[in-house]
Amino acid sequence: MAGRKRILSGMRPTGKLHLGHLVGALNKWVELQDEYQCFYMIADWHALMSEYENPKKMENYSYEAARDFIASGLDPNRCTIFIQSQVPQHLELAMIFSDITPLAWVERCPTYKEQLRELKGRELATYGFLGYPVLQAADIALYKANAVPVGIDQLPHIELTREIVRRFNTLYKNNIFPEPEPILTKASKLLGLDNRKMSKSYENFIALSDTPEIVTKKVSQMVTDPERIHVKDKGHPAVCTVFNYFTNFGEDAIREETKALCESAAMGCVQCKKNLAEILIRYLAPIREKRDKLTGSMIKEILREGRKEAADFASQTIDEVRSIVNLAR
Amino acid sequence: MAGRKRILSGMRPTGKLHLGHLVGALNKWVELQDEYQCFYMIADWHALMSEYENPKKMENYSYEAARDFIASGLDPNRCTIFIQSQVPQHLELAMIFSDITPLAWVERCPTYKEQLRELKGRELATYGFLGYPVLQAADIALYKANAVPVGIDQLPHIELTREIVRRFNTLYKNNIFPEPEPILTKASKLLGLDNRKMSKSYENFIALSDTPEIVTKKVSQMVTDPERIHVKDKGHPAVCTVFNYFTNFGEDAIREETKALCESAAMGCVQCKKNLAEILIRYLAPIREKRDKLTGSMIKEILREGRKEAADFASQTIDEVRSIVNLAR
Repeated sequence: MAGRKRILSGMRPTGKLHLGHLVGALNKWVELQDEYQCFYMIADWHALMSEYENPKKMENYSYEAARDFIASGLDPNRCTIFIQSQVPQHLELAMIFSDITPLAWVERCPTYKEQLRELKGRELATYGFLGYPVLQAADIALYKANAVPVGIDQLPHIELTREIVRRFNTLYKNNIFPEPEPILTKASKLLGLDNRKMSKSYENFIALSDTPEIVTKKVSQMVTDPERIHVKDKGHPAVCTVFNYFTNFGEDAIREETKALCESAAMGCVQCKKNLAEILIRYLAPIREKRDKLTGSMIKEILREGRKEAADFASQTIDEVRSIVNLAR
Repeated sequence: MAGRKRILSGMRPTGKLHLGHLVGALNKWVELQDEYQCFYMIADWHALMSEYENPKKMENYSYEAARDFIASGLDPNRCTIFIQSQVPQHLELAMIFSDITPLAWVERCPTYKEQLRELKGRELATYGFLGYPVLQAADIALYKANAVPVGIDQLPHIELTREIVRRFNTLYKNNIFPEPEPILTKASKLLGLDNRKMSKSYENFIALSDTPEIVTKKVSQMVTDPERIHVKDKGHPAVCTVFNYFTNFGEDAIREETKALCESAAMGCVQCKKNLAEILIRYLAPIREKRDKLTGSMIKEILREGRKEAADFASQTIDEVRSIVNLAR
C-alpha cells in the first residue's frame, strides 16, 4: 500500500527472546503492522559488535528470533522480516553516514559510555562499537522510515539519527530522508526472576520458547518479598518479583485479589507462584503453538522473502544516494 | 594462474592522475602484473572520506583513473581493475574488522593525525575518516593479498593491517588471512611545478591526460633556480625544479649534459625548459595515444569485467568469514 508511513525497528540476536521483549517491543510491533509499512530487522551486525569474541550461537539466535517474531504475532504477509547482514545496502549507507558524522557526535553518545560500563569484562572499546548509532541511523534512513518504535533508553540514538539525516539533506541540498519520530514503546517494567534487571547475561528470564515445565520451574524459583519468611508473615507485593509479573500479565481482578491475599497472609508464596505459572503458561500457549508449527525451512523461506522485499526498497534508496554523492554506478 | 601470490593496491579518485602517480606507483604496478595476481582498485569509498563536502567530480575521476591505469600499461587481461564501491564485500569485511579493532589502534595511527593537519579547512574529524585504515585492511584481506605495493608513508597502514588480520586469525583460531608484506615503491622524488610538494590541491602537476600544448605551457612556467636571475648567472641544478624532472625522466647522458650546461651558464632556462617539455611529451605520447583510443564504453566494459572478477574472489572470502563469525548465510 503506497502512502503509508514507514517504520524500521530491530532486535539483536544475542540470545533467546523473552517476556521482556514481548512486553517491551513485540506487542507494540504487532499493533503497528497495519497502520505503517513495517520493516522488522534481526540486527546481526549490531549483535556482532558486542558478541564478536564468541559469536558461536549468533546464526541460530537469528533464526530463532524470526521464529519468535512470527509466533508473537508479526505476519510476514503484512510486514517485512529480514536479517540485517543479508541486505548489503545497510553498510553502504552506514559508510556514507560515517563520512559526514563528526567524531564528537558518536563519542558523546550517552549509550556508548553506558554500554562500556555495563558490559564490563568485554573488550568493547572498538572502532566498530563506537559506530553503533551510525549504523542504526543508516538502518532507519535506508527505509526512509518516518517513525521508530523504541524504548526510552534509545531516544538519544533517534536524536542522533535525526541529526545525521538533517546533515545529509543539508549538505547535498535535497530532501531524500525524513527525520524519524520515536514511537515510545511501553517501558518494560518487567523484573528479572531474581529481582534484578532482566538480562541475557544474568539468565534471569522466561524465554518465549520455554516449555510449561520450564516456566513452572522458573516461577517456583523466583525471588519474593525478602521480609516474608513464614507463611503467616504478611507480604509486601510492591517489592515482590512475583507480584511484578501479576501487574504485567494478570487481569485486574486477579491482581487485586492476589494483592489482598498476600498482604493479609491468606495465601502463601508457593500457591501464588503456582497461580502465576498458570497465567504465564496460558499467555505463552498460543505463541508456543505457533512456534512449534514453524519449521526451519519455513523460517528460511520467510527470511528469503523478507530479504528480497527489504533489498528492493533499500537498493532504490542507495541508487538515489550514490547518484547524490557521485559514486560510480 | 593458481599459485601466484596476490597483490592489492589502489588509488583514490580525488583528481586527475599525474606524473607523480606514474613514477610513484603505476610503473611499479605494471611491472608486478605478471609475477602476482593483481587487484588494482579505484578507491572511491576512501575518496569520499575526504571529498564528501564536494564529491561532484568523483564519478568522472573514477572512470578517468581507470583510463589512466590502462593507458599507463595495466592490461585488463593480466590484472583486475575495479571500483571499490561496486564490490559490496569490502564493506562487509570492514564491518567485521571494525568490531575486532581496538579504538586505540586507529586513534594512534600516525597518518590520521597527519592528514587532519595537512588537509586543513576540511572537516575531517569524522567517524568515517578515523576508520580509513580499517577499510584499507579489509581491502587487502578480502583478496588474501600477500603483498601490497606502497609508498613509505603508507607503511603504518600495512603494519595495522597485519595486526588486524593477526587478531582475526587468533580470535577465530584459523589461518584464513595472510599477513601482507609491503613492496616499497620508489619514493617519488618528483617535485611540484612550483617547487612545493606535488599535490592535487596546489594544482602544480602535469596530468597524464595533459596535451602537448599544456605540457609545454606548464613546463615553461616551472620554478627554476631562484639565484639564477640573468642568463649569464651560473645555475644550481640541485635546487632547480626543472632539473629535478631531468633526474626522473631524462636519459643519463642528457641529464649530465644539462647539468654541465646549466652550471657553466652555457644554456639558459628557456632552452632547458624546451628540452624538458620535449622529453615529457615524448614520454607521455604512448600513454596519450592509448588514452585516446579508449572510449567511455570500453572503460565501463573493462570495469564491469573487473568488478565481476573481484566480486568472484571477494564473495568466496566473505562466505568463509561469515561462516567463521556465524552470520546467517
